[in-house]
Amino acid sequence: MMSKHRYPAADIAVVERVIRERRDIRHFVAGRLPDGLLDRLLEAAHLGPSVGYMQPWRFVRIVSNETRMALWGIVDAERVATAASLPTRAADFLKLKIDGIREAAEVLVVALMPGREAHLFGRRTLPEMDLASTACAIQNMWLLARAEGIGLGWVSFFDPEAVGELLEMPPGSRPIAILCLGPVAEFPAAPVLESQGWGRRLPMDEVVFEDRWKAGAGGTPTAY
Amino acid sequence: MMSKHRYPAADIAVVERVIRERRDIRHFVAGRLPDGLLDRLLEAAHLGPSVGYMQPWRFVRIVSNETRMALWGIVDAERVATAASLPTRAADFLKLKIDGIREAAEVLVVALMPGREAHLFGRRTLPEMDLASTACAIQNMWLLARAEGIGLGWVSFFDPEAVGELLEMPPGSRPIAILCLGPVAEFPAAPVLESQGWGRRLPMDEVVFEDRWKAGAGGTPTAY
Repeated sequence: MMSKHRYPAADIAVVERVIRERRDIRHFVAGRLPDGLLDRLLEAAHLGPSVGYMQPWRFVRIVSNETRMALWGIVDAERVATAASLPTRAADFLKLKIDGIREAAEVLVVALMPGREAHLFGRRTLPEMDLASTACAIQNMWLLARAEGIGLGWVSFFDPEAVGELLEMPPGSRPIAILCLGPVAEFPAAPVLESQGWGRRLPMDEVVFEDRWKAGAGGTPTAY
Repeated sequence: MMSKHRYPAADIAVVERVIRERRDIRHFVAGRLPDGLLDRLLEAAHLGPSVGYMQPWRFVRIVSNETRMALWGIVDAERVATAASLPTRAADFLKLKIDGIREAAEVLVVALMPGREAHLFGRRTLPEMDLASTACAIQNMWLLARAEGIGLGWVSFFDPEAVGELLEMPPGSRPIAILCLGPVAEFPAAPVLESQGWGRRLPMDEVVFEDRWKAGAGGTPTAY
């Protein structure tokens, strides 16, 4: 049944294109964001869904070079620690670039607000829904950035305590992302971790089941 | 600086429109999804970003009425338990509809795969990144569904153990969403929880700070 609320076919194709062409970006080129774009990206995030309408996301825009370099140091330390903890391919992991934090036009730290335990609506059995809401908000920003031709990279290896101290975050808050945003030379045709052989894209029948978990279906084989 | 990778202005407007018009839907009308749409929605989700390319999301499509009704029972029990746990407005909460699970054209249970502890890439200090990736995947599906004029509601009040047992999920997996999808009479102009007075939309300056957490900035005032 075709819905009367359906967008024109060409507009639906745009939505599918941006979903297909979004990439996690590690390399940036010089240049700033167009005027007003950062605000529009933040507004797109703030239009994300949130459990119980709690709007748990907070964004800290890094403006001083000192803070940016301190963040870079925190990430570099964890990059080394993660490599040491990997059962295999530590050397490959160390080659992964984190220069984005130094090079990107903008760096944002995304955090969960304090006082979240007061929000029970939709979270009594799934408290992690606050993080889920914030990730959806970041995905909004990610897709709009791609449509604008701006790269976004989500860095998730850092010590949350160290970042919290650096940004003077209140007790109970938790940083969950360092986002690098800026102009890029290119958007890779395939995810970098795929083209670098870190993993393969799973076929749909390994991620979609009917009525019951598919017997024998486990996790994703290649683990690091 | 305008990027050469930028989409045409009209296409960017489409991306901003679908982000703005996406809603968490609780009411559905009779009718099925157009042929092939469910597969496209699942593929959009599977194009989501994932930490270390782990692709932690698994989707269980509910096809039998028995399983659907059992799911409804699990959610109804938690609806009552949540209401009892709310400091205020328990009665209001009980009025919130969960009929979507019975009425929607499609019901999907989204779960995190087992064996996630083997994936350290980007998760050594932030293990919850598997959930973040899966939420981004669901947001892809949510936006494409809206463009197709199909409603999607994310139900997050249920006992994960009970759902895991019902769907024979393996140890180590975790259900994080029951998604209701189907034709709707309308997409509300504002989020239902806003128009029902559950919360107010926060102004941008309460969610965006510069270089440091804004002194005194806390969580979201109205908590349930």
